Amino acid sequence: MTPKTPEQSKTIMTDLVLPSETNPLNNLFGGELLARMDRAASIAARRHSRRIVVTASVNHVAFNRSIPLGSVVTVEAKVSRAFKTSMEVFIDVWIEDRESGLRDKANEAIYTFVAVDETGRPIQVPEITPETKLEKERFVAALRRKQLSLVLAGKMKPNEATELKALFQ
Amino acid sequence: MTPKTPEQSKTIMTDLVLPSETNPLNNLFGGELLARMDRAASIAARRHSRRIVVTASVNHVAFNRSIPLGSVVTVEAKVSRAFKTSMEVFIDVWIEDRESGLRDKANEAIYTFVAVDETGRPIQVPEITPETKLEKERFVAALRRKQLSLVLAGKMKPNEATELKALFQ
Amino acid sequence: MTPKTPEQSKTIMTDLVLPSETNPLNNLFGGELLARMDRAASIAARRHSRRIVVTASVNHVAFNRSIPLGSVVTVEAKVSRAFKTSMEVFIDVWIEDRESGLRDKANEAIYTFVAVDETGRPIQVPEITPETKLEKERFVAALRRKQLSLVLAGKMKPNEATELKALFQ
Amino acid sequence: MTPKTPEQSKTIMTDLVLPSETNPLNNLFGGELLARMDRAASIAARRHSRRIVVTASVNHVAFNRSIPLGSVVTVEAKVSRAFKTSMEVFIDVWIEDRESGLRDKANEAIYTFVAVDETGRPIQVPEITPETKLEKERFVAALRRKQLSLVLAGKMKPNEATELKALFQ
Amino acid sequence: MTPKTPEQSKTIMTDLVLPSETNPLNNLFGGELLARMDRAASIAARRHSRRIVVTASVNHVAFNRSIPLGSVVTVEAKVSRAFKTSMEVFIDVWIEDRESGLRDKANEAIYTFVAVDETGRPIQVPEITPETKLEKERFVAALRRKQLSLVLAGKMKPNEATELKALFQ
Amino acid sequence: MTPKTPEQSKTIMTDLVLPSETNPLNNLFGGELLARMDRAASIAARRHSRRIVVTASVNHVAFNRSIPLGSVVTVEAKVSRAFKTSMEVFIDVWIEDRESGLRDKANEAIYTFVAVDETGRPIQVPEITPETKLEKERFVAALRRKQLSLVLAGKMKPNEATELKALFQ
Repeated sequence: MTPKTPEQSKTIMTDLVLPSETNPLNNLFGGELLARMDRAASIAARRHSRRIVVTASVNHVAFNRSIPLGSVVTVEAKVSRAFKTSMEVFIDVWIEDRESGLRDKANEAIYTFVAVDETGRPIQVPEITPETKLEKERFVAALRRKQLSLVLAGKMKPNEATELKALFQ
Repeated sequence: MTPKTPEQSKTIMTDLVLPSETNPLNNLFGGELLARMDRAASIAARRHSRRIVVTASVNHVAFNRSIPLGSVVTVEAKVSRAFKTSMEVFIDVWIEDRESGLRDKANEAIYTFVAVDETGRPIQVPEITPETKLEKERFVAALRRKQLSLVLAGKMKPNEATELKALFQ
Repeated sequence: MTPKTPEQSKTIMTDLVLPSETNPLNNLFGGELLARMDRAASIAARRHSRRIVVTASVNHVAFNRSIPLGSVVTVEAKVSRAFKTSMEVFIDVWIEDRESGLRDKANEAIYTFVAVDETGRPIQVPEITPETKLEKERFVAALRRKQLSLVLAGKMKPNEATELKALFQ
Repeated sequence: MTPKTPEQSKTIMTDLVLPSETNPLNNLFGGELLARMDRAASIAARRHSRRIVVTASVNHVAFNRSIPLGSVVTVEAKVSRAFKTSMEVFIDVWIEDRESGLRDKANEAIYTFVAVDETGRPIQVPEITPETKLEKERFVAALRRKQLSLVLAGKMKPNEATELKALFQ
Repeated sequence: MTPKTPEQSKTIMTDLVLPSETNPLNNLFGGELLARMDRAASIAARRHSRRIVVTASVNHVAFNRSIPLGSVVTVEAKVSRAFKTSMEVFIDVWIEDRESGLRDKANEAIYTFVAVDETGRPIQVPEITPETKLEKERFVAALRRKQLSLVLAGKMKPNEATELKALFQ
Repeated sequence: MTPKTPEQSKTIMTDLVLPSETNPLNNLFGGELLARMDRAASIAARRHSRRIVVTASVNHVAFNRSIPLGSVVTVEAKVSRAFKTSMEVFIDVWIEDRESGLRDKANEAIYTFVAVDETGRPIQVPEITPETKLEKERFVAALRRKQLSLVLAGKMKPNEATELKALFQ
């Protein structure tokens, strides 16, 4: 299988914040943003693998900025690293000011997807060859995150998580 | 006001076809696609004008291809020409094959938006400077479409529609 | 096949403007109105043909009036002319004032539908016999619109569009 | 206040059964039909009173027929009787067969609405003058239903419910 | 079939009132509450019968309190009595004050469901053994309601409705 | 401020998986489940703090089981630990088999919310006193998760994260 670049899976979803998606403070519900990011990230994973994909996990997501009703929100998703049958997808969320046209980072999130065949069985995906500086940083950090995920799930012993362990010494 | 290029208003909305948007044949409802294109085009018009924008009209739209449930649909909108307070937005709709990754043109449409101030009064917008061959063709044809629209609305006499008249002689 | 009158396909859809359908100015989104009109018009086309119908095209639609949240909106659709396998549907949109009870025309639109059999192949539909003065005017104009549509799609040469050509001479 | 006829409040809401409104058997959810009937009936009550109206109660509703995905459903609502500040609205629900074009009664329901002023205080509404045989029967039965409602709410003693009592003797 | 207690079918659905569910006064639509209660009650009936269930009827429902946008609403449903193939479900609706934490009764309603097999044919369900004082009262009253329902549907003569008749003498 | 128990904030949201929430494999979208959990968890945080609450972060979430269309899903949320102005909420998701009535764990997730006053400024919340064995375990682990979150956000140096560091030695 020929490796692919993150750019080849890049998915852009620009849309408005609609009234049915806002909380009593007139800001986008956290849950709605999680749902939008899931759809964009699943498309990126599908573009990388050309397979049916299912959400396997969501990494830690911090909501640093509220996103008001009527905002233009851009969700950008790219596969950051592929493992045997799974893909880590990095998602950047931007909002833009109507008058100045400036874009501000509102959020970032990391989801993991598994590629499956028609019967739902996991199936191999191409590797990732990162190109830009940011893509390379995210590629390296993905292994640390995978180990953390395995440790938290009780599927790897902390002292085997070499990448992670280094952090705390 | 400094003119802008179509590229500066380019808006990409990639999303899945969800079950709640499909008709009994399991294809995307024509009406739902019209609503999605309206949202994408309104963002492009807003990016060009940096103003509140309202839909003024929808040009002729042909639905040549059905878009099945689960498809990945990309709606791309760019301002094709600006008049005094209005903007014509050209929208291209693509679907892509999951296995081959190939994109096919599924639809195109043309919407017109008016920029308004906070009180709802029309307000001037920057001009457009087309760059690519396709952008230039669409820029020229926009005037013909505007005349047609005025004739159909009874606001221009057919024999004053110089651009249009030429077509039929 | 026995011809039918426009009245036989008449479809009335009266409903409220709900909060989830409004833009930041608290008016009905243009895109939502397009979707409602598509549903009403498809029912009219189905009543005329007694077949599965799919949206083929939307004619030029102008949005002359904004429709505020909470309005009562009535969409009325009637088949205005039938061609071999397609039907032109004329849609009138009304809003009514709560206190006076008066109805105002808010919009009109023209959609075209094709009747298909279970395999999706176009199939013949009955002709239309217009009755009222308005129905007769719309019936005549439908041919002009069909020619315009064919010319714009590059499927008819402008100088063969006899009905249309007359307009510009 | 001039009395009005039921016909003056007649509200027709014809629409498709959409995929997002169906249960696992692919039929319209009972709850969704209750919501549609509430919207149609509230428009009828508003047309009669020309006031803001709020749902006061729903009478007994029986679901005799399931309504499959893709059906064309027509909800017809008319005010059947007005009391001081409240209105009883009778709702008939029809579905039609695509091939034969025949309409079948699928349901009927009775809702009660109260007219209120801007501060939410109940306010007087015009009386009803029934015209057809069916409207007259429903007008008479409305008083019996009102008594039943008061008895069930503990606001009227059973032996004061003269209309109702007659039924059981 | 072993009888069950109402507690065994108890279903709790706590959720927010979302912006897309409110009327122009910013209160929950009556119709939306009817739909939520239908979903909660159908789960209770399913838990009692362990079968597919379909809504058979809705008893009289009174809307005594408006429920504002952003409220926390708790819908509690329990089977109150089982007949041969049908179940009466009693639904209590509560809203709670954010600052004091106090719960207030906002509504109650009674729905009836029928258990069906895969082909849609009614099928027997277990009996109910009420435990608390309130459950016993509701169990007894259910028979009276069933008779009333049969009388209103013309399926029982008023003078055979022994439970009901007693009320009016 | 009097400390509270996790039980006092317990929130139960039982609902069906509706057709509009499913992916092409007819299972609940990961994103929709994230949105439901967000709503349930925000109610728990609001019950604990009696304040307006906003989503601050979502911890690692693994999707171990797919949840098919028509399932009965129960989301249970309880505040597991309170810090100065923030609350960690633990969410357990169950699905139940219709025929056997057995409940299976489908997912668990951890969200963090911040309590704010009317102007959006963080405000103090009561402490948590865990009662059961499970509540105590989650209370202890919450501190480790908070440190991990601070380390990942670059707001704490790894070697100051005493709880976390212990894991890797």
